[in-house]
Amino acid sequence: MAFVSNHFKAALVFAVAVLALFFMISCSGQKQNDKTRTDLSSADQDLVSQAMSIMSPIPDQIVSTTNPLNEAKVKLGKMLYYDTRLSRSNTISCNSCHNLATYGVDNNRTAMGHGWTRGPRNSPTVLNAAGQVAQFWDGRAKDVEEQAQGPIMNPIEMGGMDKSQHEVAVKRISDIPEYRELFVQAFPPDKNEVSLENIANAIAAFERTLMTPSRLDKFLKGDGTALTAEEKKGLSTFISTGCTSCHNGSHVGGAMLQKFGLVKGPYWQYTGDKEIDKGKAAVTGNASDDYIFKVPTLRNIVHTYPYFHDGSVWNLRKAVVIMGETQLGRDLSEGQVDEIMVFLKSLTGVVPEDALVLPLLPPSPPDAPKPDDVVL
Amino acid sequence: MAFVSNHFKAALVFAVAVLALFFMISCSGQKQNDKTRTDLSSADQDLVSQAMSIMSPIPDQIVSTTNPLNEAKVKLGKMLYYDTRLSRSNTISCNSCHNLATYGVDNNRTAMGHGWTRGPRNSPTVLNAAGQVAQFWDGRAKDVEEQAQGPIMNPIEMGGMDKSQHEVAVKRISDIPEYRELFVQAFPPDKNEVSLENIANAIAAFERTLMTPSRLDKFLKGDGTALTAEEKKGLSTFISTGCTSCHNGSHVGGAMLQKFGLVKGPYWQYTGDKEIDKGKAAVTGNASDDYIFKVPTLRNIVHTYPYFHDGSVWNLRKAVVIMGETQLGRDLSEGQVDEIMVFLKSLTGVVPEDALVLPLLPPSPPDAPKPDDVVL
Repeated sequence: MAFVSNHFKAALVFAVAVLALFFMISCSGQKQNDKTRTDLSSADQDLVSQAMSIMSPIPDQIVSTTNPLNEAKVKLGKMLYYDTRLSRSNTISCNSCHNLATYGVDNNRTAMGHGWTRGPRNSPTVLNAAGQVAQFWDGRAKDVEEQAQGPIMNPIEMGGMDKSQHEVAVKRISDIPEYRELFVQAFPPDKNEVSLENIANAIAAFERTLMTPSRLDKFLKGDGTALTAEEKKGLSTFISTGCTSCHNGSHVGGAMLQKFGLVKGPYWQYTGDKEIDKGKAAVTGNASDDYIFKVPTLRNIVHTYPYFHDGSVWNLRKAVVIMGETQLGRDLSEGQVDEIMVFLKSLTGVVPEDALVLPLLPPSPPDAPKPDDVVL
Repeated sequence: MAFVSNHFKAALVFAVAVLALFFMISCSGQKQNDKTRTDLSSADQDLVSQAMSIMSPIPDQIVSTTNPLNEAKVKLGKMLYYDTRLSRSNTISCNSCHNLATYGVDNNRTAMGHGWTRGPRNSPTVLNAAGQVAQFWDGRAKDVEEQAQGPIMNPIEMGGMDKSQHEVAVKRISDIPEYRELFVQAFPPDKNEVSLENIANAIAAFERTLMTPSRLDKFLKGDGTALTAEEKKGLSTFISTGCTSCHNGSHVGGAMLQKFGLVKGPYWQYTGDKEIDKGKAAVTGNASDDYIFKVPTLRNIVHTYPYFHDGSVWNLRKAVVIMGETQLGRDLSEGQVDEIMVFLKSLTGVVPEDALVLPLLPPSPPDAPKPDDVVL
């Protein structure tokens, strides 16, 4: 018994040691958290307070009362997002122009659409698109649900020229049993039909999860170590020069529409554009809306070149200088531009892992509507 | 002490019980394995033997002595596979026509290429492409390394019309520091330049990992439970009717070139094709090579519609009937076609998880060669 008891004692000592180590690690983690929260220098505290008065951390997802999120809907939306069958030619998916491998854009001047036609405007990133004040460069859609129908119906995006063409896209999806089952899971029993509206709602639900928190968000939440000294200086300059007049809120942009050339214009004399885009005025017909565009989010801006509504500028530095001139009436100094650039680079966030996993798409039955083979 | 000892005893009993449970689970797993190996019925043993005389399990990857695989090369290859910058327009990547979300094909009759031009042939799946006797429908490339250069240079695939255009594609990649670093990691020090050849080698290395083992492979390795009774019947019919004369080896196809219309022809009278494709003869100029095409792999065949070199047939059942007629001179009975269909459906395999994870691509510097914006 004594022999056994000694072994028991050794086991107890070991177990207690393991538990003690476990608690030490836990507590040290806790301490670390407390430390980063309480160790903000007074300069950092001031900067956080200043930033938090015009910005806020981005949420993990943007909820909607009219299009509530659920797992099946987000899964379905991701499948549809990557599915070329929504396009007339079966060669273009949402991801073609809003490529998640390149931070939700195509890195082209303007988008390539049906019939090898370049659209008139630059593809905005789908990352952090939900939760903005409106969708499209001219703000003509109120939310991602309304936006998602746009490209499917657009003759020069996915090739849906008329109602019969949308019906083909919808039929291609509704002919697939695996999709029908997912619509049943995703939507309420009385509203689960495979319709253009529900296709768009599912895609929008997926998009509502495409938020990319970055180190800025940690800093705004009080972690003084999340940004480097240079990045904090950059944030400070970004605020003090007036960039945050427009690029503010949780998305660092996307919260308002604004005239391109607000202080100095017209904008094309700065960007070198040859075609003039009237922006919101082209939708409303009001001269007061001339050259008004949505202020884009600056999250992931290093990756979402080329810049502006027509992708006229490929160099982020040049874009910053143009913004200073046209929107703020300022000749930003080399040093100020350097500082702002450092801050902008810090805005590259974390793309949700699951969004990057290509879904394996269910096959179409042999008699489903075929791709349009017409060579234009 | 008695109190403590009792607790020690309880702890010991508990620990022993946990260990015992652990070993029981381990052993039962072992037993299960042994069971499936030894419980092959004699009919199953005969079928496995018969199948193994003409087929073999697919390996996890296809090695190459001239293009040895390593982690950095496969990673680089995956990035390039998904990168549209290899195309003149910056809108087409390898994945555009060999979409891994749809089992390595585009589900189009023939591929959509540069300038909205449909190519002459159906995009074969990239899954299980490595390790086949040759590449392309006419077998004109000896391996995936040689094949991967093809589309980049092809005027109607990715738009590389002449040498200057390939150089643009190569420069777009070599201008990116993250890519240059990966080439250094992937290739030997004396051969790590960013060249068309190395771009193709990296893509090919990635492709060499795109094998999709299915339940057939488990069955071939002696697991009698891996296929259902109906699938075994289907395999048996697949062999007895002569399908395995051509669709054999580890890829269930891809091991030889064969005349389309071997017994009865010409093939277009069966498929309904309007354009006649001479196949290998178009490369060699020899009349003896007329209508000779590579025998495609049947792995994942349910997903890789439409069928044949020109995607003329969308219905797998119809394709099986045509193969029976043209290649075997047999009118397969309804029942035989049913049985073969059941077997073919079992050939859907597991796509390697990592291949489906979209890589986040590094941005181009602002002065890198731009996409070709010319609207054709």
